[in-house]
Formats: sequence, structure tokens, C-alpha cells
Amino acid sequence: MERKISVRKSMISFQHGDFQEMEDDIVSEHPLTIYINQEEFATMVCSPRHYEELVVGFLASEGIILFKEEIEALDIDADNGFAYVQVRSNRMQSPSYYSKRFIGSCCGKSRQFYFQNDVRTTKTSMTNVTLTTEQCIRLIKKMQDNSLTFKGTGGVHNAAICSPQDIIVDRADIGRHNALDKLYGHCLLNNVPVKDKVLVFSGRLSSEILTKASKIGVGIVLSKSAPTDLAVKLAEDLHITAVGFIRGDSFNIYSHWHRITDTN
Amino acid sequence: MERKISVRKSMISFQHGDFQEMEDDIVSEHPLTIYINQEEFATMVCSPRHYEELVVGFLASEGIILFKEEIEALDIDADNGFAYVQVRSNRMQSPSYYSKRFIGSCCGKSRQFYFQNDVRTTKTSMTNVTLTTEQCIRLIKKMQDNSLTFKGTGGVHNAAICSPQDIIVDRADIGRHNALDKLYGHCLLNNVPVKDKVLVFSGRLSSEILTKASKIGVGIVLSKSAPTDLAVKLAEDLHITAVGFIRGDSFNIYSHWHRITDTN
Repeated sequence: MERKISVRKSMISFQHGDFQEMEDDIVSEHPLTIYINQEEFATMVCSPRHYEELVVGFLASEGIILFKEEIEALDIDADNGFAYVQVRSNRMQSPSYYSKRFIGSCCGKSRQFYFQNDVRTTKTSMTNVTLTTEQCIRLIKKMQDNSLTFKGTGGVHNAAICSPQDIIVDRADIGRHNALDKLYGHCLLNNVPVKDKVLVFSGRLSSEILTKASKIGVGIVLSKSAPTDLAVKLAEDLHITAVGFIRGDSFNIYSHWHRITDTN
Repeated sequence: MERKISVRKSMISFQHGDFQEMEDDIVSEHPLTIYINQEEFATMVCSPRHYEELVVGFLASEGIILFKEEIEALDIDADNGFAYVQVRSNRMQSPSYYSKRFIGSCCGKSRQFYFQNDVRTTKTSMTNVTLTTEQCIRLIKKMQDNSLTFKGTGGVHNAAICSPQDIIVDRADIGRHNALDKLYGHCLLNNVPVKDKVLVFSGRLSSEILTKASKIGVGIVLSKSAPTDLAVKLAEDLHITAVGFIRGDSFNIYSHWHRITDTN
């Protein structure tokens, strides 16, 4: 049985000068602890769906696996929030490695990394995919229109892997990273090629989101929100087209703008 | 010299069917790595201001210090993003402790915790502070109006510690947690009593934000955004009044609503 992504809860609403007891849909948040080869590795809080995708995407994002075939076993105890993973251990580092600051000269990709692990797992985009201005506007609108959870609760981030024409898969999660990890996991589990795809995201483009997009392997990222300067520098270095502030019929292109073409 | 919280950058704007090269303010994002007693402890990305507050608030939030006097030395290398802290080591645990999942029966505060450390560092609120409905609406509006960075870049979270009447201190940061840690650090460094204060926050109320509010020690949290079910359960257990969706002249109260009183 799939766990509920939102729950009905009573609360006090104040409107037009009056208090009223009402019921409201509130988004669910569950902890998930991942054990890798019998060792506690990380605990995240997430929307309680698509746990398998989340775990696989997380492992790939951390560089613990490159392909799904490297996972020897994956058992999920959804009720209690535990995932037990067995992976071939040749890529596995000690847990402290994954949060170690990267300090060094240029690694051939970007000088902007701050985690050692990101140097190893990001990919410089080589895609030829392009989007028309109309497609940029349509894809972000379509993702938002699709998200019943966001409309019901206002409490999730939405993310989607798209072709220039349409959404291929979309995921909602209370955590920014989780939404992207679920997409990453979905693509790995279902052999979806990503090089010619576009990542559409409801939240702000921080360096962490840009790094995650690079790991997934897309060449274009669309967002309705603002980027940071570090995200823009990473986008430049990793050859990713970063588009932000897509609102109504306007938007800003922050890097590699040759991939966005005029509609006419 | 204080580092800039936003930078001017050229980008391509698409508006009314036309591309145009323009300049825009983009919010800055810098990594900061904290060493505690010569050991690398954590790396965060943040808005490059108020590093001392951020470090002190982070240490308190992690339970490494309770009072500023426990910090024996704090040296910040802002240009390279390093903070070197010397603390009395009696409270210090091994780094892996801080991310360990909490599994157990009721700890006397809440069954909703998922990190061991939070069991130790949160406080059940005993405040008598109350807010009128008008004060709720006014405080969130005032915080947003104050935030020049948000207006200029759209790229930061805002948070403020307030009395019922006014803002005492506000901080903006690209990271949700950082904005709260800076407030916590500010209060500790300046001996600001928090029990009778209110936390006002621009972002969603997740369990992590509610836990942080409890650690800071406030009894009321106001947000313009949605809560999660786990945040509401924690608010109930920790005796915190959680108010969300403050928009225009309406809002929702999710827990301990007796602290919000009618204006008249």
C-alpha cells in the first residue's frame, strides 16, 4: 500500500476577521534512514513515495553507484522508514568522505566545487538539445499544472525530466534534493536516456541543485525561481544552460544561451 | 570589509517576444567549512555575511555549546570560507553522532524526532507570550518589506526574531537553516532573551525548521508558507504555536492556538 503524500488535519483558520475551525490537507513528511552494507549512512526526511527511486538516485548522486546493476540488494521498510542496501563496495568510501570539503586547484571541470565527491560525480554536458522560448514557458507551466499535491498543500517542490515537447516523468517531494534524486533514480531504474533531456524545477537554482542536475546528466535546467551566483558559475563551467524566473511569457537565461532558440 | 550578499551579472532576458542582454542582481552563495578543535566538522553554503553568528548558532543548534562562554576561540577566514573553532570538549561527540537516527521510545518530549541530537537540544516551550491577529499579519509583512536582498534577487530566505510589537533582529540567507542559525547566534552573542519572542520565517515549516525554532527557544512561529504534518506534530509536542499561510489578512493556526488572540 502506498503511503499518503498528504493528510487531512484540523486547524484554526483566521479569515475576514473571524476564527473558524476547519480541515486542511497538510503535506506528509517522513524520515528515511539508509543503511549501506550494514552501516548507517544517512537520514533524510521526504515525502513517503517512490522510496526505491529516492534511494537509487541518492546512491548515484553520492557516487556510490554508477549503474543500477551495482546494487546487489535493496530492501525497503516503508512503515518504519528504513532502506537496507547492499552494493558492490569498490566505489564506496568511508562515510566522512562524502562531506569533506574540496580544496585544490582546477580539476578540469570547475573551480567552484566545495565537496570532494562532486568533483568525481558531475559531468560536463555535451548535449545538442535545444528548446524554443515557447517550449521553456510551456514545460514549466505544465509541470505546475500537473502537481495536485502542490495545489492541495503548497508544501512540495516539483521537478520533472522532459523532452523538448513534453514531461517524461515528474516527482514531488518536501525536500528539494529528494525530488531530483527520485528523478535520477527513475531514469537509472528505467534506462531513460537523459543527455537530450531537460530538467524542470520549481525551486531556486542553488549550487547544490545545479550540481545535482549535472550528475543526472541533463544539459538544460529550467526554473521559475532565482539562481545564485555560484550556481551560475557552475552552469557556465559544466556547459549547462540555466534558465530562471520563468513567469508568464518571460524568463532569464544565465548561461549557454545558444540552446534557447527563438520560436519563429 | 563585508562580502557582498549579491553580485551584478549579465544575462539574456526574454520579454514580450524579444531577447535582450541585461544586467541583474544575483544572490551570492559561498561555502563555509567549520573546523572544531582542529577537526573538519561540516561544510555549508551560505550568504557571505554574519559568519560569526552563523557559526555560534550552528554550534548551539548541534548541541556542541549551550552558552557562548564555551567557545574558547573563533577565527574566521571569510575570504576562503573557513571557521576555526576551539570549544570546551565535554559536550562534543564524534562527528558521526550528529547524523545518527534516533530510534527509541518516548523521550519525554516528542516521539517525532528522527535525530538523536534533537532529543537533547530541543526545549518544550513554557512561554506566556501571546500575539493578536493583527500582530501576526503585521510582523510577517514588516519582515518581507525590510528584505532588500529578497526584493533585489528573489534568492534568499528571511527570518526574524520579534517581540509582539516589532522586529528585534532579521537575517537573510540562501539557506533556510542558516537564516535561523544566524538569529540563534545573534541572540546568544548579544544575550537576547528569546522565551517571550516570536520567530517569523519566509519559508515552509518543515520538521527541521520547527526543531530549530524549539532549540532557539521561541514559543510562536509565524510563516507565510505551508507546514508539514511532522512539523505540526512536533509543534504540538513541544508546545509551540505554529501559524502558516499568513497572506493578506488571513492565516491558519496549526497548534496551541490559545496564544493567538482576537485583536478587539
